[in-house]
Amino acid sequence: MRYELYYWPGIQGRGEFVRLALEDAGADYVDVARETGPGRGVAAMMGVMKRGSGARVPFAPPFLKAGALCIAQTALILQYLGPRLGLVPKAEAARLWAHQLQLTVTDFVAEIHDTHHPVALGRYYHEQKREAKSRTAHFLSERLPKYLEYFESVLAQNAGGRRWIVGRSATYVDLSLFQLVAGLRYAFPETMKRRRRRHAALAALHDRVADRPRIAAYLASERRIPFNEDGVFRHYPELERGVS
Amino acid sequence: MRYELYYWPGIQGRGEFVRLALEDAGADYVDVARETGPGRGVAAMMGVMKRGSGARVPFAPPFLKAGALCIAQTALILQYLGPRLGLVPKAEAARLWAHQLQLTVTDFVAEIHDTHHPVALGRYYHEQKREAKSRTAHFLSERLPKYLEYFESVLAQNAGGRRWIVGRSATYVDLSLFQLVAGLRYAFPETMKRRRRRHAALAALHDRVADRPRIAAYLASERRIPFNEDGVFRHYPELERGVS
Repeated sequence: MRYELYYWPGIQGRGEFVRLALEDAGADYVDVARETGPGRGVAAMMGVMKRGSGARVPFAPPFLKAGALCIAQTALILQYLGPRLGLVPKAEAARLWAHQLQLTVTDFVAEIHDTHHPVALGRYYHEQKREAKSRTAHFLSERLPKYLEYFESVLAQNAGGRRWIVGRSATYVDLSLFQLVAGLRYAFPETMKRRRRRHAALAALHDRVADRPRIAAYLASERRIPFNEDGVFRHYPELERGVS
Repeated sequence: MRYELYYWPGIQGRGEFVRLALEDAGADYVDVARETGPGRGVAAMMGVMKRGSGARVPFAPPFLKAGALCIAQTALILQYLGPRLGLVPKAEAARLWAHQLQLTVTDFVAEIHDTHHPVALGRYYHEQKREAKSRTAHFLSERLPKYLEYFESVLAQNAGGRRWIVGRSATYVDLSLFQLVAGLRYAFPETMKRRRRRHAALAALHDRVADRPRIAAYLASERRIPFNEDGVFRHYPELERGVS
């Protein structure tokens, strides 16, 4: 099966959580909007999203084509791919749990995004910088600790041990937690440094994922887009400085 | 199977999407935090959420106990309940699609919530009223139309007809769309009145759900908590007035 991933070129964004799963599994996939040629590029992605085609049209990227299926929503794409890529245990309860954790990652990502866009998704950051400072201050003092401590406690209580978050092997949730830690370190380096000891298990999980051969090769490749100020995780020093 | 729903008493909130499915199916369930007695009430809910118990602890309500399973995240609870309550078609593609739509409802609900809490979840509305006005103006002019027009177009393109959003029968997604329309009419009555013609199919779907015998009985009962200014959908006239 050759998968087709559709996501904005130029940013990691929400698409990166899917890319990490496909890369870790060594799956055969095309990153459609980053390619050129017929049926490729952003125009091809916009074509799928065009209404009136009679198909099941996604609300927003990322989405994945898998044969006749077209699946949107990051967490759902991962729920679908997990069993096919060997990135989730077999038991139903473990699969529900993995999806539940991934949906909590989704909520966290939305809150991270809104630190730099608290007023209007469709306007520039500099137009809402003052509100972004307030939101970031609250996020760094209340929300970031709450989410990270939650994932730390889930790791500590995993019956399969603290190496991975669900069961005894790596799942797509672990790959997403790697991305969260990497992204938060990029966006809020001082905060993450200051809190490093509290999140030793998450930091170890981050390193364990980064060392997986296919992930290490991916991160060193040009396929990994660098973090930048168009994505979810943005480094605006003035936002973090507001609370230090 | 007797289900146990855990959610904050006193508000509809995200728990209401689950309540509507349980009520429509005539399921046997307990709304745990709204009851009194041993193992009931908010204290029982907080007990489940206490970390260190070795169990799979949810990040936040609502969550559902179904036998040995404890499932959180509204959309996941509905994905789990759907087949068991006869509220989703059998085909895999239709089930993926229903969950995808429900996750889009989830995103919409988060944006609706943030109109009155754009800066800090943990602070009062009146402490962030100015920012709420800006966010609501953007929400009502950009985001609300985008989401509602999306769901209208999905309804128009459903191969099973425009009566329901997936296939030929009511699904849990239809119940959630009813709740969205009802909640938005409560929170932003002028906007919804002005846009009524554009959303004729969604309005008809709302009425069709409201007329389902078990839903009608539920809405008329004391089990249906009235909309209020502690929930997701809040009527603050000053926010809507900011844009009229």
